[in-house]
This record gives sequence, structure tokens and C-alpha cells, in this order.
Amino acid sequence: MNSYDSFLSPLGRNLHESVLRKMGQVIASRSGDLISFAAGYPDPTGFPWNDFREIASELLSGKDGSVLQYGPTRGYRPLLESILGVLEKRGITADLREVMTTSGSQQGLDLTARVLIAPGDVVLVEVPTYTGAIAAFRNAQCRLVGVRQDADGINLDDLDATLMRERAAGARVNLLYLVPNFQNPAGILLALDKRQRLLEWADRRNMLIVEDDPYGELYFDDVASAAETRPIKADDRNGRVIYLSTFSKTLAPGFRVAWVAAPAQIVERFDTAKQSMDLMCGILDQRVIHESIVRGVLDRQAAPLRTLYRERRDVMETTLRDQFGDRISWMQPKGGFFLWARLPEGYECEPLLEKSLQEGVIFVIGSAFCVDGSGHDRVRLSFSWPTPDRIVEGAVRLSRAMTLSPVGRV
Amino acid sequence: MNSYDSFLSPLGRNLHESVLRKMGQVIASRSGDLISFAAGYPDPTGFPWNDFREIASELLSGKDGSVLQYGPTRGYRPLLESILGVLEKRGITADLREVMTTSGSQQGLDLTARVLIAPGDVVLVEVPTYTGAIAAFRNAQCRLVGVRQDADGINLDDLDATLMRERAAGARVNLLYLVPNFQNPAGILLALDKRQRLLEWADRRNMLIVEDDPYGELYFDDVASAAETRPIKADDRNGRVIYLSTFSKTLAPGFRVAWVAAPAQIVERFDTAKQSMDLMCGILDQRVIHESIVRGVLDRQAAPLRTLYRERRDVMETTLRDQFGDRISWMQPKGGFFLWARLPEGYECEPLLEKSLQEGVIFVIGSAFCVDGSGHDRVRLSFSWPTPDRIVEGAVRLSRAMTLSPVGRV
Repeated sequence: MNSYDSFLSPLGRNLHESVLRKMGQVIASRSGDLISFAAGYPDPTGFPWNDFREIASELLSGKDGSVLQYGPTRGYRPLLESILGVLEKRGITADLREVMTTSGSQQGLDLTARVLIAPGDVVLVEVPTYTGAIAAFRNAQCRLVGVRQDADGINLDDLDATLMRERAAGARVNLLYLVPNFQNPAGILLALDKRQRLLEWADRRNMLIVEDDPYGELYFDDVASAAETRPIKADDRNGRVIYLSTFSKTLAPGFRVAWVAAPAQIVERFDTAKQSMDLMCGILDQRVIHESIVRGVLDRQAAPLRTLYRERRDVMETTLRDQFGDRISWMQPKGGFFLWARLPEGYECEPLLEKSLQEGVIFVIGSAFCVDGSGHDRVRLSFSWPTPDRIVEGAVRLSRAMTLSPVGRV
Repeated sequence: MNSYDSFLSPLGRNLHESVLRKMGQVIASRSGDLISFAAGYPDPTGFPWNDFREIASELLSGKDGSVLQYGPTRGYRPLLESILGVLEKRGITADLREVMTTSGSQQGLDLTARVLIAPGDVVLVEVPTYTGAIAAFRNAQCRLVGVRQDADGINLDDLDATLMRERAAGARVNLLYLVPNFQNPAGILLALDKRQRLLEWADRRNMLIVEDDPYGELYFDDVASAAETRPIKADDRNGRVIYLSTFSKTLAPGFRVAWVAAPAQIVERFDTAKQSMDLMCGILDQRVIHESIVRGVLDRQAAPLRTLYRERRDVMETTLRDQFGDRISWMQPKGGFFLWARLPEGYECEPLLEKSLQEGVIFVIGSAFCVDGSGHDRVRLSFSWPTPDRIVEGAVRLSRAMTLSPVGRV
């Protein structure tokens, strides 16, 4: 057959590709020396290899057959209990009916999309916001409507005005998606008082908040503290928050183990949906993660990782300043992996990306994160993965690409 | 909040639970001595623990950071190449554009559902058929229509008549779902000539065939041969077949690694869909599987597993005959994990299950596999997991439950 178009479902015809995944393909397919400021990869030199090797060796002794057997969809029970402990340390009290494992936080987003978003719904997101959420939500055939961001996170006036406007126009609007800690891509930390006010707002407006928190533990202690990362979920007395988090940034992303903490009724539905999606998360992965928590590996990881990524951020900032002076501007990231840079007047990210690829450096174009068509004057630079040397070299290449770059769009 | 019903999507409100998964929860939650003929679990004593331990140890040395890093959605490239080799041995020629990894074959079913099934479509399945497919397809809001099964697989006359009837009534019908090798639950092996005729039929009627093949390598050589398991996909010259297979039965299900071989255009769509579903399969899992193929572990597994499960089948058949004489009947399984037993006149599986649970034995009710409302006189007995002793004891308990069981429905 020549074409399968007539066999596709409406979703199959209108699938939204993840920009980040596509960049990954570009990187993988390109030979030669390419420096990536694109992917939000953790640095594998920071993974606790020795602990993982030891744990995996013990688990694979063959004494316990369940290590490689089918298991419950919700997750390996002792891991779920460990996760309750992790949540407790973040100020969140939950019980076993309120947590489940997901195959990466991406699956938490997909579960949210499938179980809670009806075609035609409006979902509120920040401008900019995480591309993986954009793709998952759009695949539920909703319309994403953007809300303005201030230096301390989402603008609450614009949020409420946007909600009211959409509802007045007849839209079903139930969900707000947020990354409060070191937002992807903007690196912003949502102010604590705004978190409180968001909960009041959700109650008042009968909204659910999807709180995506992969980076909370990775605050940089020169400018941020653990207290400032307190999840919205920690104060969620009325069951308004679906909290997503992951071990991908603190242990390793190769294990596909993340989790959801949400009202029991929602977790119950997510569990049922996951049954027909992939049955369960990898069992060996779950067991390795569980042992890593129990043996204190996860706790030991946090401080060195904070130092590691803070140093990377410093190198990135210093180098950008050296190369560009004040032609490029950004807000200092207080944690996480990303720097959200504004290009000089007249530059746009799409043609710059093409030139940059020729120079051997890659980033993610700002427009990929913006549901309102903006972001063309922005780039997301990830400092988590390249070594300091490579960050410096990458910035030099970027500077060279900007010299070559046509001013504005061609 | 008391209820989240108003927040649910149409899918969230109408999620179909996997019966097997639910049985798994029953088993997990029940204390005491329960013998399970329910779950289609492989026997973990058959897993190549030493090989896995050695491989995992090497991979986790830390020398190669990509072992625990994010990776491409389609799969770890060398694993995809290994999979092409596995396909080749089954008579299937494919290239890299035509394969991708999935998080279990369940995700292959879910991808099929999302990308190829539009709400309101009719999908054709055998009666009985695999519950995981029923759940995944129903969650795409289609209508499943059953086709009769003969001793040598799907009845082709009924298949065509059913298709024509549904199309005449205005339904969009594009997909037939089949498990040709040692079908779950009926244990049936689809005749080779029917496989050829199915391909001709698919061309004639412009249909796609979803061929689910988890058990093909597990033929019992007293009554079946490798040649008889030749996949339909092997002769698919016109791109009519979406072939799903997995390492769950031959290596271990705890690694969530399965794969799809399908026309490149369809794989491309599946890849895009998977990006927003879970980004990728576990990387360590993929690497362990890849090494297991490269080092010959997978090939070495097949023969002993065939012997292991054939012996289990023999024990199951002998014991059932001892306990029930000719009151229970079945077709001899020629491979795989399952025996599909017909209950004596007047007995129904639902009340029998309740009695059986009291006696400490569990199975899956036949009706769970039948989309046409039939199957109440059937039970699926899995012989793969319990040891021979436990199979005997389980059959004794089943016999006791049948003595106690009310005749027919109460």
C-alpha cells in the first residue's frame, strides 16, 4: 500500500510531535562534534553507578522471582511506601490510595490528558511551558490557552481573567498546568504566597491544578532554599492538586519510574487507564529505585547534584556574559537545568538554530514552549549535560552563529 | 471535594478495566494459600538470572553513561537491529524504519488503538480473544465485534460475513485483531493455509491485521513445529500486518520491552504517539535485552522453556482428567500458557469462581474474553506459573469447588 492515511484515527492524523524528542533525533542522527544545549539531560557522571550496580546484582540473584515478574499496575507496594516517605519530606501527606507509579512523568501527563481532558476543553498553561505537556495535552484534542508569567511565576490576575473569559465564551476549563519549581523552560521559581493564592483560586473557581515537579530538589542555595520549593500539593486540603514527580533528575532517567500523588478517586482512574496502556512500570527499575531510597542513595544524591548543576549554571552565565555582554538577557536560574535567554533585537530563534547547527551547537527554539505563538525571540539553553569546557565552547559557537545569522527572519 | 466525576473526560468516565489486572489485585490482596491458574505469568525459575546479573553488572559499570540516560523514543538503535535479526529467524524481513520498541505489547495495543481506531469504529476480534486487547481497543471508544473460532483458528467465512454485514450497516471497519500462535485464551494454533488466505482477504477487503505473537516460540514439539508458527507478517507483501511481539515470555516480563513491526508510515505515527505517552522504554531494560540477544541467551532460552511449559501442560491435562474425567473438556494446547476449559452442563464460571476462591484456587472467567456475551461456560486455566505439585493441588481444589458449586447461576 502507498498510503495509510485512510486508516488513521483523528488522533493518528493530528499527532503532536514533541519538539524535544525531535531535537534528540537530530542530535542522534548528526555525526561530528555537536554541543547540545537542547536536551534537559542530567549529567550521567552524577549517577550513583556503584550503588545501582550493587543493588541490581543483589536483586538479580534469582532468589526473588518477583524482581522480573509481572506486578501490580499501581506499582511495587514497598516502593509506593517509600514514595510516601519522599513526599513527607516535601511536606506532602498522602496515603497508599493517593499514589501510583508512572512510566516517567510523561505518562503522568498522558494519564491526565486521557482521563481528565475532553476534546474541545480548554487547558490553561503558562507562557512559556513544558513542551512534553503541550504535546500530551494537545493529543487529547484540547485547546491550550496561555497565561502570562512574572519573574516570580504565573500572573494570577491574567490567570483569572483568562479563565473567566474562556468560561464566558462557553469553554469547559478544569485544569491549570504548572511547573512551580525552576520551570521548564523559564527556570522560574513560583513565589510561596502565589502558591497559597493558587489553592484559594482553585477552590473558588472549581479548578484542578496539575503540579509538575521534577526539579524541586535541585535548588541552588546561593539564591534559593528548600523552603521555597514547598509544593503546592503540601497545602492542598481540598484535593485540588495532581502532583507529578520523578526520579529521572535525582537518580537516573533510564529507569522509567515517576509517580503521581492525587486524590484517591483520580488515582483510581489513572490506575485503570494505565492497565490498558502498559500494564505496569518496569519491575527491576522499580526495585532498584526502592532500594536506592531505602539505602539512602536518593538522599545522598541531592546535595552534590545541587552543587554540580549550580556550577554548570555559573559557567553558562559567565560564558554568555563574556561572549554576548548585554546583547542577550535572562533571569538567573535559581535551580533546575535551564536558562531562558532573550535574543538581541531583530534576531529570531528559528534561523539562528539553522546557523547554530552549522556551527556545531544546538538549543531548543523558544517558540516551541509558547502556545500563544510567541517565543521567537527566545532560546532555551540547558546547562545540565555539557561539561564546563563544552559549555564555554558551545557559547563561542553560538556567538559565531549569531554573527552569521541574518537579522530577523529571512 | 467529594466527587471528581464532573472533571472526567468521556474516556475517564468509561474506562475499561483489564480483568486480568483485576485478578492480579485479588491475588496480591489475598493472604493465605492461593493457587493461581489465573495469571499468564512465566515461571521465574526459567529466567536466565546469571546472564542478567552479569550483563547488568557490566552495563552499570559507569563507563557508558548512556545506559541510564534518556534515549530515542523508537528504541536503542543496536536493540532495534537485534530485533531485526529475531524477526529474520521468524521469516520476517523488515528494516529499521519498520520497527520500534514498546513498553510491553500492551503499549503496542494501545498505540494501535490510539492511532488507528476512531470513536465509533468496529474492530473485529475472535471469540474468545485477549482481554488486554479488549480493554485497549474499547478505550478508543470502538465497538468490538466477535468472529467465530474453529479448532484451527478463526472461521474465515464468518469473518468475511461479519465484515460485510458491518460495512453494509455503515460501520468503518479497518482492523482485525488476532493471536495466531497458541491463542490467549483458547491455546489454538492458526492453520498455515488460513494465514495465507487472511492476507488475500485483507487485500481484497482493504483491511489491516493486528497480529499479536507473544507465544510463537513456545510450541510443544509433540504436537506442533516451528514451521507451523510462521507469522502472517512473514508473507505480508502488501503492508497489511501490524506485528506485535515481546520478550516477556522468553526473557522476562519485568523488563518492559516489546516491539512492533509494521509499515514504516504506521511506525512513524506510533513513534510520534509514544513520544507524548512515555518518551521511551527503560534504557537499562533495553540494553539488558540487547545483550541477551547478542550473547545468545535468548536463543538458548527457547528449547528449555518449550520443555518446561510442555511438562506443565501435561501435568495440567493429566490432573484435570484425573479429577474430572470427561465432565470438563478442552482442546489440547499446542503451545503457550493456557488451557481453555468447558465446564459441565449447567455450570457457570462466575459462581464457580466465588466458590473456587473459598477453596484457594483462582482462574479467569471465560466471559471476560468474549465480546459477544458468551463464555459463561468456560474458564481459562494457566499452567505456566504454578509448579507441578501446585497444579495438582489446584485441580483438587477446583474439583472441590465444583462439588460445592450451585448448578448454574443462582
